[in-house]
Amino acid sequence: MHAVAAPHLSAAPAHRVARTVVTVTDAGGRPVPDAEVAVAQSRHAFEFGNIAFDLIPLANGEGEVRDVGFGGASAHLERLADLWLDVFNIGTLPFYWRTFEPERGAPDTARLLQTARWLAERGVTVKGHPLVWHTLTPSWLDDVPLDKLASVIRSRIVREVTDFAGVIDTWDAINEVVIMPVFEAEPNAVTRLAAREGQIAMVKLAFETAREANPNATLLLNDFNMSPAYERLIEECLEAGVQIDALGLQSHMHQGYWGEEKTLDALERFSRFGLPLHLTETTLLSGHLMPPEIVDLNDYQIPEWPSTPEGEARQADEVERHYRTLFGHPAVQASTYWGLTDDGAWLGAPGGLVRADGTPKPAYDALRRLVKEEWWTPETVVRTDAEGRFTLEGFLGDYAVTGAAGAASVALAPDGGAVEARLG
Amino acid sequence: MHAVAAPHLSAAPAHRVARTVVTVTDAGGRPVPDAEVAVAQSRHAFEFGNIAFDLIPLANGEGEVRDVGFGGASAHLERLADLWLDVFNIGTLPFYWRTFEPERGAPDTARLLQTARWLAERGVTVKGHPLVWHTLTPSWLDDVPLDKLASVIRSRIVREVTDFAGVIDTWDAINEVVIMPVFEAEPNAVTRLAAREGQIAMVKLAFETAREANPNATLLLNDFNMSPAYERLIEECLEAGVQIDALGLQSHMHQGYWGEEKTLDALERFSRFGLPLHLTETTLLSGHLMPPEIVDLNDYQIPEWPSTPEGEARQADEVERHYRTLFGHPAVQASTYWGLTDDGAWLGAPGGLVRADGTPKPAYDALRRLVKEEWWTPETVVRTDAEGRFTLEGFLGDYAVTGAAGAASVALAPDGGAVEARLG
Repeated sequence: MHAVAAPHLSAAPAHRVARTVVTVTDAGGRPVPDAEVAVAQSRHAFEFGNIAFDLIPLANGEGEVRDVGFGGASAHLERLADLWLDVFNIGTLPFYWRTFEPERGAPDTARLLQTARWLAERGVTVKGHPLVWHTLTPSWLDDVPLDKLASVIRSRIVREVTDFAGVIDTWDAINEVVIMPVFEAEPNAVTRLAAREGQIAMVKLAFETAREANPNATLLLNDFNMSPAYERLIEECLEAGVQIDALGLQSHMHQGYWGEEKTLDALERFSRFGLPLHLTETTLLSGHLMPPEIVDLNDYQIPEWPSTPEGEARQADEVERHYRTLFGHPAVQASTYWGLTDDGAWLGAPGGLVRADGTPKPAYDALRRLVKEEWWTPETVVRTDAEGRFTLEGFLGDYAVTGAAGAASVALAPDGGAVEARLG
Repeated sequence: MHAVAAPHLSAAPAHRVARTVVTVTDAGGRPVPDAEVAVAQSRHAFEFGNIAFDLIPLANGEGEVRDVGFGGASAHLERLADLWLDVFNIGTLPFYWRTFEPERGAPDTARLLQTARWLAERGVTVKGHPLVWHTLTPSWLDDVPLDKLASVIRSRIVREVTDFAGVIDTWDAINEVVIMPVFEAEPNAVTRLAAREGQIAMVKLAFETAREANPNATLLLNDFNMSPAYERLIEECLEAGVQIDALGLQSHMHQGYWGEEKTLDALERFSRFGLPLHLTETTLLSGHLMPPEIVDLNDYQIPEWPSTPEGEARQADEVERHYRTLFGHPAVQASTYWGLTDDGAWLGAPGGLVRADGTPKPAYDALRRLVKEEWWTPETVVRTDAEGRFTLEGFLGDYAVTGAAGAASVALAPDGGAVEARLG
């Protein structure tokens, strides 16, 4: 039986590859023996993500760029879209309450829905971020009496999760709960509620409401706090019966690359819950680092933060090392980079994979090489055997099988069960 | 029956005054009729406190001033001691672990004990601050394995509480627990333990250990967080069976006087637990205010922070208003100002009641006038009746009764029960 196999498979992490028998059939379900088919990977099972804020104006055919909090590139939008779509298969859209519903009752639903559909049509999974957070709340929320606040939050969750169901089925249900009840940098209604009700009640509010609105949703708990305080929160949530689908670990590294040891330590500690890990917000800089004494990254505001040649070389090295560590750990299911371009980047930091002028940095090339070359099963032509079968060995994900009778898509999953490619 | 009564009693808060019958007796316990006695208040029941860090070198006869974290005046020590002792009846001593035991096993016990005794001899109640806190931990603590840390903290608590029992029987058992598990400004072992074990376990560790070491101690939970998050912590501690003797509310007002409304709101919210309230750390500035965007007061470091005439007038007004609010609320049992002098003040802020040159600011005079005049029962000579009795009406506290046969001290307590002044 002829086989398709990626040349680097032996060096790949065992949990990222599989081997299965594919039976090629015709439209009537009859095996197609002794036929040549082209087999091409079309998608990674691993979720390589990025924020897709930059793509909102393009998806909506808008001439101007509107504020979504941050992450709105001002130029080269089509080129950015090409670079984005070439590497990433999951995009995060901004549901910051302040920018999504600056005026009560007038949410930005249509524009975000159009963007989500635009992404979905291009094979991108779409994720919403976040449903509940204490930062970037709208000013009108401060006027809601504390006793009504949970109900207003619940309505917002139901509205977004329902309006986007089927297009966005993955949500950061609640963000940064570890610090939520004591967050002081920006007085806000969500913190006041969290201080009164406690962390677990806030997590329940977010998860139970979102789950009821979309039982199929993948719901994440997301935090930047990598200390045992987050582990403890997760424990308490699980004990309280909250159904968490994945754990979100932010990884903004404005103050320097964590290195393999610290990264692996975090992955080990958070994998003990048996839940998939999503590295939700990765930043690595191609310029000078933020000083270590800054505690809240938002406190560091400088007029110019240039990307430098030395910084770009370092960033490329660190991006490659970071993604190797994540891809190498079986608990990691997704890794979302926090911004494609330096143009409009969060904090003005040169954390993009693309320069403000739209040209790719070495880090972009390094990541693309991993995602689309080293960890990508190359397209091959194979001949089916007398029973119409061939063996597919490759990176987990989706594959297009194309023969004279047409094309089919098959999924290569870790269980390795036999699959059928019914051409048509 | 002749009576002693302060002239301002009718204007005084009802919960701060009492009326009782005093029977003057001789050394054998026989009433002394128709005799003149002088009656003088010697002490307030209300605890007017200040930190006494400045007095350590004086109490120890030291020529030089050693670092105790902050609060070490460099000159005018005797004058400062006079000013201190004229107004305050409870003094807080610094037990910051980093400065108290910079080298493991070599605590600064003798020097602090000498200071505590020096204060006690002068009629001052002494309080220790704090037994457990995440800030100002010694660097050697970082080398203690996490599994041994609770035991090391327990030993430290037992040592201090035992060594000082009888001289210091009031402790901030644990400080700033609301933020303890997520405190990031200074990575430290206590936060790591709190993140793992949770807030309630940390409170229990502090209170149960200190209680066992000194069952007579008054133990405080102390925090700067005045939000519902602190209320919630208190609720959870009480539900978990922690015996809290008083609630400490810090009130550093470097960013501006709270005003009566906010102060009363906090007093109302925290008085619902039925526990005495101690305003533990009050600061009001006589210079420019710290900008409102600073979240951690420690982040604001400037080379010069002068006391100004306008600032001193404002501070005097605010000190008077603040103390009136506290004295006027029945739940408040103590109010500790955070530093006598600007010399060596925390953050270099002009929050002292005395200028760096040792001269009192208007705020000192205002506070002294309240404590020793408006709220002080003036000395009076009264004649006992045929049964040796007189009526004492005045501010709660201790009184000296002096007659031809000698002197006695009586306490004027809220219950107003009859008391005996046995001269001798």
